[in-house]
Amino acid sequence: MELNGMIRVARGNAPADLVLRNARVVNVYSGEIYPADVAIFGARIAGIGFGYEAQRELDLKGSYLAPGLIDAHVHIESSMVGVRQFAQVVVPRGVTVVVADPHEITNVLGLDGIRYMFDQAKYGRLSMYVMVPSCVPATHMATAGAYLEAKDIVALQNDPWVLGLAEMMNYHGVVREDQGALEKIDAFKARVLDGHAPALTGKALNAYVAAGIGSDHECSTADEALEKLRLGMYILAREATNAHDLAALLPMVTPENARRICFCTDDRHPADLLDQGSVDFLVRSAIRAGLDLVTAIRMATLNTAEWFRMYDRGGIRPGNRADLIVFDDPQKFDVRMVLRAGQVVSENGKLLPFDLPERPSYLRGSMNVNWHSVNFSIPAEGRRAHVIGVVPDQLITEKRILEIPSASDVAMPDPEHDVAKIAVIERHMASGRIGKGFVQGLGLRRGAVASTIAHDHHNLIVAGADNISLTAAAAAVADMGGGLAVADGINILARLPLPVAGLMSNRPITEVRRSLDDVIGAARSLGSELHDPMMTLSFLALEVIPHLKLTDQGLVDVDEFRLVPLWIDS
Amino acid sequence: MELNGMIRVARGNAPADLVLRNARVVNVYSGEIYPADVAIFGARIAGIGFGYEAQRELDLKGSYLAPGLIDAHVHIESSMVGVRQFAQVVVPRGVTVVVADPHEITNVLGLDGIRYMFDQAKYGRLSMYVMVPSCVPATHMATAGAYLEAKDIVALQNDPWVLGLAEMMNYHGVVREDQGALEKIDAFKARVLDGHAPALTGKALNAYVAAGIGSDHECSTADEALEKLRLGMYILAREATNAHDLAALLPMVTPENARRICFCTDDRHPADLLDQGSVDFLVRSAIRAGLDLVTAIRMATLNTAEWFRMYDRGGIRPGNRADLIVFDDPQKFDVRMVLRAGQVVSENGKLLPFDLPERPSYLRGSMNVNWHSVNFSIPAEGRRAHVIGVVPDQLITEKRILEIPSASDVAMPDPEHDVAKIAVIERHMASGRIGKGFVQGLGLRRGAVASTIAHDHHNLIVAGADNISLTAAAAAVADMGGGLAVADGINILARLPLPVAGLMSNRPITEVRRSLDDVIGAARSLGSELHDPMMTLSFLALEVIPHLKLTDQGLVDVDEFRLVPLWIDS
Repeated sequence: MELNGMIRVARGNAPADLVLRNARVVNVYSGEIYPADVAIFGARIAGIGFGYEAQRELDLKGSYLAPGLIDAHVHIESSMVGVRQFAQVVVPRGVTVVVADPHEITNVLGLDGIRYMFDQAKYGRLSMYVMVPSCVPATHMATAGAYLEAKDIVALQNDPWVLGLAEMMNYHGVVREDQGALEKIDAFKARVLDGHAPALTGKALNAYVAAGIGSDHECSTADEALEKLRLGMYILAREATNAHDLAALLPMVTPENARRICFCTDDRHPADLLDQGSVDFLVRSAIRAGLDLVTAIRMATLNTAEWFRMYDRGGIRPGNRADLIVFDDPQKFDVRMVLRAGQVVSENGKLLPFDLPERPSYLRGSMNVNWHSVNFSIPAEGRRAHVIGVVPDQLITEKRILEIPSASDVAMPDPEHDVAKIAVIERHMASGRIGKGFVQGLGLRRGAVASTIAHDHHNLIVAGADNISLTAAAAAVADMGGGLAVADGINILARLPLPVAGLMSNRPITEVRRSLDDVIGAARSLGSELHDPMMTLSFLALEVIPHLKLTDQGLVDVDEFRLVPLWIDS
Repeated sequence: MELNGMIRVARGNAPADLVLRNARVVNVYSGEIYPADVAIFGARIAGIGFGYEAQRELDLKGSYLAPGLIDAHVHIESSMVGVRQFAQVVVPRGVTVVVADPHEITNVLGLDGIRYMFDQAKYGRLSMYVMVPSCVPATHMATAGAYLEAKDIVALQNDPWVLGLAEMMNYHGVVREDQGALEKIDAFKARVLDGHAPALTGKALNAYVAAGIGSDHECSTADEALEKLRLGMYILAREATNAHDLAALLPMVTPENARRICFCTDDRHPADLLDQGSVDFLVRSAIRAGLDLVTAIRMATLNTAEWFRMYDRGGIRPGNRADLIVFDDPQKFDVRMVLRAGQVVSENGKLLPFDLPERPSYLRGSMNVNWHSVNFSIPAEGRRAHVIGVVPDQLITEKRILEIPSASDVAMPDPEHDVAKIAVIERHMASGRIGKGFVQGLGLRRGAVASTIAHDHHNLIVAGADNISLTAAAAAVADMGGGLAVADGINILARLPLPVAGLMSNRPITEVRRSLDDVIGAARSLGSELHDPMMTLSFLALEVIPHLKLTDQGLVDVDEFRLVPLWIDS
């Protein structure tokens, strides 16, 4: 039995594989920090104390030793790279475990997408647990690449790397007893049920919790978080590229409630991952904001392991996985060494080389557009139209009503008033469906931008000033098998290929980041003054965030939760 | 789906079954106490807040409302009554859940004993979870009624009321890689593994934890508890009839480590249950010792639920079981009302009447003695003998060497030096085996005492001054199907029938307590000055507590862990 070897090492009768000497152990159980050696046998911690002998020793010279960090909720797809590349950037920063919701790729490729993520994670340096996406598609008002009901996903919970059901974004559905949503909850009721309920409060929140949902990562104020925590929810405090909640939430942390709060990154783009980091950035930010070291580390280790029922993670104790991080300055919290399953896998911010077996990993192409049906002309069927109004740096839009110029019964963009054309081309089923309309505020004076990142259905979204640019940008994206492109007439100014589901690259994240910078630069060269016009574009199709959005099925009035006509007075 | 009704009540669209108004809610998640109403639907909490309508209302008028208490580790058999009678005393005191280790009855009746405990708990007012006994029998040096190996118990973990493997008392075996012990751990490795490791420390303790054991309830000093807690163990702080650890352990509780500490009673005799209470007594004691109310209550609720992976217990939140307690004075912590699964089941310390379906419940008799082989004569095969030395009010004994008087080659008790005869008669297999010897310090000037409570094998133990009294006491016990008896010659002075496995009565606990008082009084009338000579007697056969004990197989030198001859110089 494996136990024998472990016990023998722990009691000091056989040498450990590795002993970390002179560590300053961060004990998340007792809340103390004290000097000790840590003995490792195989992938696990065997003993903590002094006097252990070992095949190999590592003198930590008084450095801090803490459990590996856990990201409580992340869409790896937002990094625009696959799991292997993602691991290259997060593991050296101390993240040894992520709880991934492969929600984006699943909207494109269904269960194949989840399987692909598992394939890519295999034999890597990062432990990727999965929460099964609960809302594919987000609504019936957009065409996704998959339609997953309870019966389609129930079996997944038997995968040893599946922990439960991912963020139940259809919180209105749960509160209103949508049977499809309740069936999914019922199917996963013995497992972890993550929530997503921005600003849900009062009795509706009680109903959501009563249904069995036990966490939330959408709190943006301390009051919101406290109300949810009081109802027994775990608060997954988030600092994402698009959502900065940490500063608002940290003041609510008390010694009394800290055990119920975890850290998550949700969505982080390449630049933020590279420049700031992952969960380590949250720990660092919390420490700088005045939280004590052990409390901050617990939010990224023990608390998260407890919520997700990972019984052998999250703390330094005999029998647990030897996922460990080493750092020197508790104020800076710069992780300088990472051990994973008992092996040193990273030093000084760089993953050490290792043999990653090449495995056959199949993934079908995700671009299925019926180009015969695609045209960008919009018949002028009225004078005034519903126009999507961009709000800089926000995911919400405004519902505007504007006069649209026309010529020969064809409606025209209006660059003078910053009104561009926008289209969402269905790309999963080759249905030929295309939603068309107008958007104000992108700032494009000319040219066009296109993307297959278009939350959550990830159809091909394109916006621009003229049909030739629109066509060129869309065609360039399709030509790459998905990705981002910027066109000025038939000239492609910049592009970022994302051949994996139209969401992710296979290239290193640094390269992806450079290409993305180029794409953003090109879009800004066309006149946009937005911080990141491509990200703004990718949320114009998300029909669950107010107020007016466009899907392949047409304009969606999010507040009324229905499709609305483009023209007011036709 | 049941979920629909729950959600409807929670969101306020259907009346609750019951609303508790004007409660002062003890929130174990946030660590706060604040006014709120609590709405209940069926057996569960639906919502917390104000404005819930209900079929029935209960005005708590500002009383405190807390989650039902959980006893983290209890041998119900020690109460000398069955689960139903046990519930009568603990539920009114606020204990709604116990984690039982039916270790005593299992030593007598094997798996049938566990099944009987489940039978008795069914439809009752107490939720009884079971940890499967791990050490039946305790050692090979005594004859128990069952011999359970991993293969005998592995299937039990599929019972929905089984949480894991009970206290692994064979901690030396685990540390020394005893394969039988490791096989049990391996069989239950996906479940909760409770420990029992008094004074285990250093590398041996690391080995025990590395094997997977995650808790300990045997800590008797703060240092011991802190060492274990640092290694990731949950500390189940105990206040039993035989072991008073609380005062020593409370000073180690800090806001940083309190989440890892739970309360348990282990063994409580009828008088202590009736006069002091159960886990409520521990909470009360902790509060009186200065612990804050929420922290003390958490140790009997949330912390325990977390360790045992009871996901719908331990806190007041929507979706959790409506197991609730009401009390008025946070200093006194006298529970005045108990709700269980949404129903008021107890008021003012009394269980309300309810229909308990009579179920056929079969249990074989447990007295299988081969009386043809039983005689109490001890041939004088030497001059000096090993004699068990009683240490008043302690479970340990001394190993003494005394001269034993004899007549006609038969050894005699020596009342003048407080030396009595003692015998352990095998009562499970009718093997006719009988261990005989001498004990000093019981104080019996005449007569005899007998008991089928004789830890852990629970053979028939009898001690006394003459063969007639010994025979009468033993026969009286056998005649009752097990229990306690005191004889003076052929006169039975007092008796307590314990027909359930020779361990438990079917009578109300108040009656049992009176009979037990009579038995103790009778034993003291024979000269004993011990606080409880019957309890002392019941531990003289426990061959895992130092230093000299007697089993049916003979005298056991616990330190040498072997059987030793009675006579020194034969």
